[in-house]
Amino acid sequence: MTDDIQINGGGKLRHLLTLENLPGELVTEILDRAQTFLSVGDRKTKKLPLLRGRSVFNLFFENSTRTRTTFEIAAKRLSADVVNLNIATSSQSKGESLLDMIDNLVAMQADMFVVRHAQSDAAYMIAKHVPKGIHVINAGAGSHSHPTQGLLDAFTIRHFKKDFSRLKIVIIGDILHSRVARSQIHVLKALGVNEIRVAGPETLVPETLSDMGVSVYNDVDSAIKGVDVVTTLRLQNERMKASLVPSAQEFYEKYGLTKERLALAHSDAIVMHPGPINRGVEIASNVADGPQAVILRQVTFGIAVRMAVMSLLHE
Amino acid sequence: MTDDIQINGGGKLRHLLTLENLPGELVTEILDRAQTFLSVGDRKTKKLPLLRGRSVFNLFFENSTRTRTTFEIAAKRLSADVVNLNIATSSQSKGESLLDMIDNLVAMQADMFVVRHAQSDAAYMIAKHVPKGIHVINAGAGSHSHPTQGLLDAFTIRHFKKDFSRLKIVIIGDILHSRVARSQIHVLKALGVNEIRVAGPETLVPETLSDMGVSVYNDVDSAIKGVDVVTTLRLQNERMKASLVPSAQEFYEKYGLTKERLALAHSDAIVMHPGPINRGVEIASNVADGPQAVILRQVTFGIAVRMAVMSLLHE
Amino acid sequence: MTDDIQINGGGKLRHLLTLENLPGELVTEILDRAQTFLSVGDRKTKKLPLLRGRSVFNLFFENSTRTRTTFEIAAKRLSADVVNLNIATSSQSKGESLLDMIDNLVAMQADMFVVRHAQSDAAYMIAKHVPKGIHVINAGAGSHSHPTQGLLDAFTIRHFKKDFSRLKIVIIGDILHSRVARSQIHVLKALGVNEIRVAGPETLVPETLSDMGVSVYNDVDSAIKGVDVVTTLRLQNERMKASLVPSAQEFYEKYGLTKERLALAHSDAIVMHPGPINRGVEIASNVADGPQAVILRQVTFGIAVRMAVMSLLHE
Repeated sequence: MTDDIQINGGGKLRHLLTLENLPGELVTEILDRAQTFLSVGDRKTKKLPLLRGRSVFNLFFENSTRTRTTFEIAAKRLSADVVNLNIATSSQSKGESLLDMIDNLVAMQADMFVVRHAQSDAAYMIAKHVPKGIHVINAGAGSHSHPTQGLLDAFTIRHFKKDFSRLKIVIIGDILHSRVARSQIHVLKALGVNEIRVAGPETLVPETLSDMGVSVYNDVDSAIKGVDVVTTLRLQNERMKASLVPSAQEFYEKYGLTKERLALAHSDAIVMHPGPINRGVEIASNVADGPQAVILRQVTFGIAVRMAVMSLLHE
Repeated sequence: MTDDIQINGGGKLRHLLTLENLPGELVTEILDRAQTFLSVGDRKTKKLPLLRGRSVFNLFFENSTRTRTTFEIAAKRLSADVVNLNIATSSQSKGESLLDMIDNLVAMQADMFVVRHAQSDAAYMIAKHVPKGIHVINAGAGSHSHPTQGLLDAFTIRHFKKDFSRLKIVIIGDILHSRVARSQIHVLKALGVNEIRVAGPETLVPETLSDMGVSVYNDVDSAIKGVDVVTTLRLQNERMKASLVPSAQEFYEKYGLTKERLALAHSDAIVMHPGPINRGVEIASNVADGPQAVILRQVTFGIAVRMAVMSLLHE
Repeated sequence: MTDDIQINGGGKLRHLLTLENLPGELVTEILDRAQTFLSVGDRKTKKLPLLRGRSVFNLFFENSTRTRTTFEIAAKRLSADVVNLNIATSSQSKGESLLDMIDNLVAMQADMFVVRHAQSDAAYMIAKHVPKGIHVINAGAGSHSHPTQGLLDAFTIRHFKKDFSRLKIVIIGDILHSRVARSQIHVLKALGVNEIRVAGPETLVPETLSDMGVSVYNDVDSAIKGVDVVTTLRLQNERMKASLVPSAQEFYEKYGLTKERLALAHSDAIVMHPGPINRGVEIASNVADGPQAVILRQVTFGIAVRMAVMSLLHE
């Protein structure tokens, strides 16, 4: 259903809405392109002219400075003109419909929309609606993630582990409610990872998840044994409020990524986290700051990946 | 009273504050300039160097993302540096007077102020106050419109209808409280339109409006008969609260621009609206989205018109 | 304690956190550099390529449009990419720690942080934390000032008075709670000013201030006699609430800079104020707008000084 929206007849990426059904070769093309951009960030002059004169609109219907900033930086490094629209407080309050607003921005000759909206289908609706030549990137919804997160996770794993086929990977935390986890599972499968484990309390990691082709663990120690990559997810406060998990402290004791637990993994396993981290909840401070953590490298790679997506969409 | 502020001794535009008394030849100069900019928006590289290195300040004392965005895009396409100041929450709360604040921004070497303020005379006060070489554009007050709206309306009509002198035009809605209507009437008269009709309920379109040289109709069907251009205005909620109009539904039935009503106009009449539209209140969805509507073209033309005004002011 | 953070082994400025212990030759280097930038603001194309492609982050943990704007303009005139982060409402509310947030921005390849935070040591903490090659500018805390204010004061005095050694300078107002005053005293002493007077009510200008090497006056008329430079400080409302000063009117009568009082100073004395001014509280309108006031020149010089600091940090 979705691949025909985001991929055009020639097999090129037209929008980036989801990692579901995104072919492995397109993922690889994005990662390879990101690789070429990685060095741009280390230069003093961090600019490429690829999107010069294009108008990128950051449409943020919910506040997320962190995500907005990564897209703003990526667009500016490609020399685009960026217009930030924080919409909660303005047009929407005048009762203008979403698609009428989009029509107006298209009429202003927007080239690209980066969309964050509480409703996860908003980006789809916009992508279906805009004329040819205008591109949409889904920048997520609420605590859910977004496809560029899954891509930067894949980039990070490839960077440190090279070959996907022999990897063992565990994702710990709220798999049930997390698009980060789902996106990562989709993209890793597309890239050929064979062994993906998910771990956490039964309320957040039910047995039914095995339908996704992953191994389900409710005991973290067993899940982490021998893996090459550990991803911990941010524990959302809402889960505790809904009594899906006990207190933060109890969660930490049972499922938190401590140094002792990490020692059960492969000795050169990497530790990933989509950020922002809750120290002492899902991850111990000395792990987050330790030698195996690549959490901040993920952020750096995330800029390159977003630049790659933006530049590929515009070709 | 105002023309000496906005036009300098040589007959050149110094500020754009109002369309009242703006000579037809200046209007035409702006429209001609906008015509040359129209193609810029269709290019991949939508940039002209005309305002490179100039500092344009968007001074928004009331929130209007939509208007701010159009000026921001116009300035960036001319390569200006744009600084957005949303002032309600900041300097003003420290009790700094408006003109002291302007003096400070002038001292920061501002080149141009785009001013939106609840008080419609704020832009005038600023224009009177700033030194020579600094330019002010009135971007409106509240639900009132602003001169660039009137200019883009004129541009739109000229684009589709070429010759102004033989046109019949109707404006439907709250003429009494609308600067959109007043601006449009002024500029259309300056451009030579002979027959302008206004239509709506007596509370919003009183007989006294005929003093402006327009024909007053309280029956929309009669007003729309045979016209070449139909402009519908946004119905502000405040009017309903003040009991100046009945319910939204009743307004629609009596004054809304339906397909049936539009059929009374000339068969190639165009439909305009300043946006954002209230579907099913002042305009039917199938008219807003229909072949005669040029509402989104107005938005596109509005960017070119704002670029034209900014570039002419700086010459 | 602080000079080793802000100055590197080669004696070059690495961060600008405080004017305390900043060597006079570094101050002079900044002022000389600012002098070369002063003419940039008067050009039509107000751009230098010195920071082209660098990413400057304005980290404003408290709202200050005025200060943020001066840094934004300075960075843009040096061709930097500027990202404004108003953080009160966003990441911080997710409970992310300050330094975790900084780590993330560093990972996005930030080059410079301009920091405004209610806690005056926030900029220090960040400066200590960031890797080499990344620079921090303290943009102040609350009603306190910041080092670029002291530098622009020094620039202003040098501009009008040339030789520092023979000057008599008075600072009037809330010296006790004002970093503007303290910064100015530090920098003026570093530049060789011999006679600095401070004046105001005992609650705000206690005798103990003489430890800073300044002469303490509680009678403004005596303090102002024969001086070459008069700086008046903004009277914060909080002082009145805390009953440290009587009413605004009484303050004005006793300590306000009126035309009569100013007549006691040297006939070509200049009048400075960090802005925004309270007319009729700490300064009379006819003095603020009079021929001796250089308050708006300070603003202009402030842009050049901030450009100088940014460009020197990046060398």
